[in-house]
Amino acid sequence: MSSPGKRESPSSSLQLCRVMLPDDANIMGNVHGGIILKMIEEAGSIVGTRHCNTQNGDRCLAALVRVEKTEFLSPVFIGEVVHVSAVITYTSQHSLEVQVKVIAENILTGEKKLANKAALWYVPCSLQNVDKITEVPPIKYASPEQEEEGRKRYESQKIERLETKARLEEAMPPPPNPERYTVGFSQSSLIHLVGPSDCTLDDFVYGGVTMKLMDEVAGIVAARHCNTNIVTASVDAINFHRKIKKGCVVTVTGRLTFVSNRSMEIEVLVDADPLVEKEKGKYRAVSAFFTFISLDKENKPLNVPPLKIEGEEEQKRFEEGKARYLQNKAKRLAEKERQQ
Amino acid sequence: MSSPGKRESPSSSLQLCRVMLPDDANIMGNVHGGIILKMIEEAGSIVGTRHCNTQNGDRCLAALVRVEKTEFLSPVFIGEVVHVSAVITYTSQHSLEVQVKVIAENILTGEKKLANKAALWYVPCSLQNVDKITEVPPIKYASPEQEEEGRKRYESQKIERLETKARLEEAMPPPPNPERYTVGFSQSSLIHLVGPSDCTLDDFVYGGVTMKLMDEVAGIVAARHCNTNIVTASVDAINFHRKIKKGCVVTVTGRLTFVSNRSMEIEVLVDADPLVEKEKGKYRAVSAFFTFISLDKENKPLNVPPLKIEGEEEQKRFEEGKARYLQNKAKRLAEKERQQ
Amino acid sequence: MSSPGKRESPSSSLQLCRVMLPDDANIMGNVHGGIILKMIEEAGSIVGTRHCNTQNGDRCLAALVRVEKTEFLSPVFIGEVVHVSAVITYTSQHSLEVQVKVIAENILTGEKKLANKAALWYVPCSLQNVDKITEVPPIKYASPEQEEEGRKRYESQKIERLETKARLEEAMPPPPNPERYTVGFSQSSLIHLVGPSDCTLDDFVYGGVTMKLMDEVAGIVAARHCNTNIVTASVDAINFHRKIKKGCVVTVTGRLTFVSNRSMEIEVLVDADPLVEKEKGKYRAVSAFFTFISLDKENKPLNVPPLKIEGEEEQKRFEEGKARYLQNKAKRLAEKERQQ
Repeated sequence: MSSPGKRESPSSSLQLCRVMLPDDANIMGNVHGGIILKMIEEAGSIVGTRHCNTQNGDRCLAALVRVEKTEFLSPVFIGEVVHVSAVITYTSQHSLEVQVKVIAENILTGEKKLANKAALWYVPCSLQNVDKITEVPPIKYASPEQEEEGRKRYESQKIERLETKARLEEAMPPPPNPERYTVGFSQSSLIHLVGPSDCTLDDFVYGGVTMKLMDEVAGIVAARHCNTNIVTASVDAINFHRKIKKGCVVTVTGRLTFVSNRSMEIEVLVDADPLVEKEKGKYRAVSAFFTFISLDKENKPLNVPPLKIEGEEEQKRFEEGKARYLQNKAKRLAEKERQQ
Repeated sequence: MSSPGKRESPSSSLQLCRVMLPDDANIMGNVHGGIILKMIEEAGSIVGTRHCNTQNGDRCLAALVRVEKTEFLSPVFIGEVVHVSAVITYTSQHSLEVQVKVIAENILTGEKKLANKAALWYVPCSLQNVDKITEVPPIKYASPEQEEEGRKRYESQKIERLETKARLEEAMPPPPNPERYTVGFSQSSLIHLVGPSDCTLDDFVYGGVTMKLMDEVAGIVAARHCNTNIVTASVDAINFHRKIKKGCVVTVTGRLTFVSNRSMEIEVLVDADPLVEKEKGKYRAVSAFFTFISLDKENKPLNVPPLKIEGEEEQKRFEEGKARYLQNKAKRLAEKERQQ
Repeated sequence: MSSPGKRESPSSSLQLCRVMLPDDANIMGNVHGGIILKMIEEAGSIVGTRHCNTQNGDRCLAALVRVEKTEFLSPVFIGEVVHVSAVITYTSQHSLEVQVKVIAENILTGEKKLANKAALWYVPCSLQNVDKITEVPPIKYASPEQEEEGRKRYESQKIERLETKARLEEAMPPPPNPERYTVGFSQSSLIHLVGPSDCTLDDFVYGGVTMKLMDEVAGIVAARHCNTNIVTASVDAINFHRKIKKGCVVTVTGRLTFVSNRSMEIEVLVDADPLVEKEKGKYRAVSAFFTFISLDKENKPLNVPPLKIEGEEEQKRFEEGKARYLQNKAKRLAEKERQQ
């Protein structure tokens, strides 16, 4: 792509682009957030893998271990060209950070808009031995300050990754005839049999494929709650605790945890079940919180129906969700003030 | 097709073919039955739509209303070319029968095998008014006997269609920690958001797309029960009671009803939920019985673990499944004897 | 194919067909040229591989080495059925020619139109040893004249293939803020990570997959220049110099070389980068010239904005493009006169 505002890319950066097709969007023409997340991760995985193979040693593949919280800044529509540019912005001994920008271009009007910005962390896994983490070649920084800032991001995500464990609780099946606007009413699960095209060369699922499935189920939950055109507004940081192998059945369950006037928070749990390997049972691979908003026909935000809470568990999750919501709101306000 | 430079083939027949790709198969390389069913229905829908538009009047699309019981006669593998030939074999005033043969060709060895034979019933729906069934132009029969046999097939499927209603019972969610080999242990549901490429020009889902989803969920149920390489052996007659529109969320649920020494019967229920049209609720669109077998690495049949039945409902479904199993077995034997 | 109940068609011909879906088309409903090219090549590759395995010896796969210049004669729309018929028309010791016709059928009106005619050259590669070219069984010709004409086509393409090397120059990234209507303004690149379903049984990318990507990027370039509905008008002869293996990252870059009143010529360069095999660097796999036209809402041709040329390199490519344009125009006129 004609990466806007950049010169020839070294091996540590990459641009990719694709026209958005009808199947990438909902019936209102809004491209699914999951399609964007998948493209972001494809770019990250290529640039990460390419970089980690620039020195001698084992051939390796960069595996996604974490995506920082990311926001969808503008809606993307069918027919637009989505440009994803990825650049490696920090390397530690065994991991690297990729920052990604997503620009949507209307090739009929020439209009461009920033659709998303994301930061992803990868770890190189040896192709010979998938459990071996190889060394990451260092990148060059424009300044010592840049390196120092990267180190800070590295340290803080490391702490968060260590502290955060996958939420292990089961998503209980909803009651037989759930009442409208309850958590059980909109709770949804999808299952997906992992096929060859979902996987990297070493037969593990791309992180982006998992995120696309997560966004899909979260979108169905949101639409069931609102019965309107819903779009992904943001995704909280996701830690990829365990890999998923080709041939697994992946169960992705989404349920509403919190609803504000204008947004819905949906918890998404991903379980992997290696069907033909009896010894290994089903395990929790990832979990994350997605935030969706509801839009009218002019893409203006709509009010969201309140959530009917039933039982202590739901109340506890609602309070936690509210805390995250208020924290994010405060952060956004603080940032706004800083920018003024 | 009207192959240029060839004898014009009549408008009432059609051949299509495609190379089988890794994404069409499971990890053992066996092509999913659902891929074959989708190709069969694509051929049927083209030949049916083409035929119904050969006379003046409303333009219309042929909608699938019924598939007769069909058996998978030989396994199909990645790299093989699947040839589907469809021919209209009977027309009534408002419906038509398409018979389809599927041949798998190994283009490396030249070997060809009959993979499937199926019969499908279509009804032409006006493009102006989707609830209006238009008239079907009559075909010419090679002999009065041929027409008479067609009429018999027509009458008998009509009776079956009127008698059989979609099984309306809900598939209850399985208990929290189901025991191995119970019905609840392997019960699975997938949800799918209907996209533009799943639909015909009038924005209703292709019957073949629905059958592919049904086969997918049935395969997951079978694999969860056996933990082996499983393949579709046959599909009982399917009646498509109600159409599914673009934008719906489709929930496809599969559960074991009966297990013999060498086969598993899985009931598959398809519910459609028109998310953004509040007035319409969720409804049962289709239901069907799939039979799967378990194979070892040489594609030899394996024994299937017995099913642990819990409760009266499951026992009742098991007995019904056993009756279908014995009936099919008797039919096969009778046919064998007739052929000798 | 062995169409049951029909005269067995010879192993040297094949028909395939498919309904065009929304994802096959742009937002105006015009099916992408790349979709047609991919179907053409699928048919060629099946018929070529099948033929080369009709005698004893190594099992082999037919690899695409060249596509002759091809023109898109009529637009194809969503809902139409595209029929591709391929027939082997010449065999040399180590290569074969496949001629392909594409007919688009509107199954609602019965209308059929010739959409494309193409000629492709294949070479059989042994499955045991991908660098070994096996022998091609001879075909039977209807007349000595037919054979002689084939030999002429063979000789002339051989010379062209030997003379034409892949254009090895790099596509320099455009300047940061390119002016409207310059080459840099519309230049575009996409990257694609080669997945399993892009590949033949020996894990090399289908030529048709590459052509589809090339058409996609050329279409983006054309749309950026015109901001209108654009369609592929023709593709100059393409030589496939080097194969692309599974796991490679393919970078496809398109840039305008020449613009006439009514057409745009876009040069497309394809580079393959085997991410994890360091010894092999990035290499130029294919290059080609695509011609696009701009259409209004009634599918009538529109004028194309002139191209702003900057620098000697662009001027040189523009002159070369103009020469090709005039040569093609002269050829078309000569053919018209011959037909009168």
